[in-house]
Amino acid sequence: MNSPSISERGLQTPESPIRKLAPYAEEAKNKGINIFHLNIGQPDISTPTEFFDAVKNFKDTVIAYGPSNGLLQMRKNMKEYYHRNGYKHIDISDILITTAGSEAVIFSMMAVASPGEEIITLEPFYPNYNGFASMAGIKLIPVATNPENGYHLPDRKLIEEKITSKTKAILYCSPNNPTGTILTQQEIEIIADIALKNNLFVLSDEVYREFVFEGQHVSSLSIPEIEDRAVMMDSLSKRYSVCGMRIGTIVSKNKDVMDTVLKFGQARLCPPTLEQHAASAIVASGDKYFDKMLKEYNKRRDTIYDYLNDISGVFVKKPKGAFYMMVTFPVDDIEKFSRWLLTDFQVDGNTVMLAPGPGFYKTEGKGKQEARIAYVLNCDDLKRAAMILKQGVEVYTSKKVNVEV
Amino acid sequence: MNSPSISERGLQTPESPIRKLAPYAEEAKNKGINIFHLNIGQPDISTPTEFFDAVKNFKDTVIAYGPSNGLLQMRKNMKEYYHRNGYKHIDISDILITTAGSEAVIFSMMAVASPGEEIITLEPFYPNYNGFASMAGIKLIPVATNPENGYHLPDRKLIEEKITSKTKAILYCSPNNPTGTILTQQEIEIIADIALKNNLFVLSDEVYREFVFEGQHVSSLSIPEIEDRAVMMDSLSKRYSVCGMRIGTIVSKNKDVMDTVLKFGQARLCPPTLEQHAASAIVASGDKYFDKMLKEYNKRRDTIYDYLNDISGVFVKKPKGAFYMMVTFPVDDIEKFSRWLLTDFQVDGNTVMLAPGPGFYKTEGKGKQEARIAYVLNCDDLKRAAMILKQGVEVYTSKKVNVEV
Repeated sequence: MNSPSISERGLQTPESPIRKLAPYAEEAKNKGINIFHLNIGQPDISTPTEFFDAVKNFKDTVIAYGPSNGLLQMRKNMKEYYHRNGYKHIDISDILITTAGSEAVIFSMMAVASPGEEIITLEPFYPNYNGFASMAGIKLIPVATNPENGYHLPDRKLIEEKITSKTKAILYCSPNNPTGTILTQQEIEIIADIALKNNLFVLSDEVYREFVFEGQHVSSLSIPEIEDRAVMMDSLSKRYSVCGMRIGTIVSKNKDVMDTVLKFGQARLCPPTLEQHAASAIVASGDKYFDKMLKEYNKRRDTIYDYLNDISGVFVKKPKGAFYMMVTFPVDDIEKFSRWLLTDFQVDGNTVMLAPGPGFYKTEGKGKQEARIAYVLNCDDLKRAAMILKQGVEVYTSKKVNVEV
Repeated sequence: MNSPSISERGLQTPESPIRKLAPYAEEAKNKGINIFHLNIGQPDISTPTEFFDAVKNFKDTVIAYGPSNGLLQMRKNMKEYYHRNGYKHIDISDILITTAGSEAVIFSMMAVASPGEEIITLEPFYPNYNGFASMAGIKLIPVATNPENGYHLPDRKLIEEKITSKTKAILYCSPNNPTGTILTQQEIEIIADIALKNNLFVLSDEVYREFVFEGQHVSSLSIPEIEDRAVMMDSLSKRYSVCGMRIGTIVSKNKDVMDTVLKFGQARLCPPTLEQHAASAIVASGDKYFDKMLKEYNKRRDTIYDYLNDISGVFVKKPKGAFYMMVTFPVDDIEKFSRWLLTDFQVDGNTVMLAPGPGFYKTEGKGKQEARIAYVLNCDDLKRAAMILKQGVEVYTSKKVNVEV
């Protein structure tokens, strides 16, 4: 007899789109080629010293379970952080500490939608939303945005026409991964209004809330009309360069949602204890860390933008936030181009790795000319990466013309 | 308009059964009463010094993402651990590092069953299986065991008659939480045979695998016939007293299962990085830590067992593993009795907190005379707790007779 077959849910869960290229990157490395990783969102900026100090000064002799909603001190410090940001109506009881933004998103999705129900989200989107939706048995319904207007909110009719009796929420991310777009006050208000008129939850992924270079971040928590239905998902990973720490939050004034995510939290017992102690210390240290970091990322944004903009045939709008941009390349199939960069191209032993656009779309055939670029390298490396990309585009497109002729 | 309603899944997820008593414990504490916590499985034994050394000696300046399947060193060290245990056929590719046993269980359940499908498990069981099943939309089908034969495997017919076209797996825990029962080689083979004959997966929760006082732990990994369908879920939490560390594993030779849990793992990015470094160090330090710990727990088991056995009307069989026992009390409603201990009873300012039996059963009405006792206190405290319990039973049962007359 054959082995039993895994679940339909397992089959439907997509593989990480970035992972598809991993074997080619591995091969390139084995050939001694240096890869500039523009494909991943792992910041290179040093974690605050407060993290390491707190870890070294940890006094308990047992690494014990903490409360399922998080250590009280951690929740208090997060409350202070949100108060500093102007959301003075947030109480400790509105905050659950999660095992990073990942858990914040899946718990929030599960709290508002059951298997078979639907959540609408703007496309392109963070690919792991697909994974979470598959795991939870939820149908993710994409609404397209487009490069030309900088991936901003489409006409509200395009969102409203996707709403069915099964729709439970609108999920959006601002500042956005992968586009870097910051939705305006007006846009958040339109989403809020749609949610109100159609009795939907609003799930806002604000893990890049500190990465704002122009304009202003508007939180779902700042819209009084949706206080009863806004669920904010947050993470310390990016803003303190602690991606491996795995500490995030869910924030909502909706008591049913908070009771529900607490029940999910009880099932998994607690987020990591020592990490919460350390996270608590960095949040208590205030927001000064962000200033220097933002200055650095802003410089990087300008650098990579200027160089990319200079490549013939490339289209990119300068995004206002996060540390990503979606870039449209003069190629038919970005996955082939990205693979080619790894397998067949190099400049003095260096090449570049991109995150191909289709991984950020659910709609078949979309994103085939786009790639996400994460500017988490220093400016010198970004310049070198952009120069390689420029030459790569030139060689690939001319080669291609030859092939096609 | 009212707020949108949370998901049916959220409504169906049970609250932690232990949490129901929490407000009464809180009240007792506010009255200055000391509570001996026999209700929770948080060991008091010191975490190995290797954990703290590794944390202090961590050299990276960035707490970065690790691989989704876990740090390579961690996986290597776990492989060595399983080899030391005799499972020499386990390769690194058969191991995924999880964010504790909790994630190991929910990923495994999700990998084998889709929403609406069924998993059979022995009752009483670890209450969070209920939470995970609700989150995953899976139906958990209990098969009763009973106190008289020490909660051992029931007649195989009783298991087989629960199998439907929707059944995907048999899930069991040995050494068992909450009963302390260790399933014998023969019993594991019966489960294996049922799984083979009915094309089911075998999910074995072995987080207490080191807590064996008599007899032997038999892993699902040691039964060659089910190599293609056994999924072992493990955790370092209890055996190294690192419950707040949140590091566990999924181990399986079934490639589809491993590919699937890796996809789930990619969605949530990675387990905590620093914790994996520290976990890696404690696993590398070998198994000496267990000897001392086991000796201590064995003493505790004997102590609490002798005292409980001495209480008139109490029924308890001495379990062979884990650090729990299920105890049958001469009361009609264990939840009322447990509450009464907190609200109306004390001996010199002390009382005892139990984990009421019904929380460990899915079948309505079951476990009403039982409570789970965790012997994670030192022997002196256990003696005092048992003495209080003895007096409590005497007062409660005589009082009850009075009330009923």
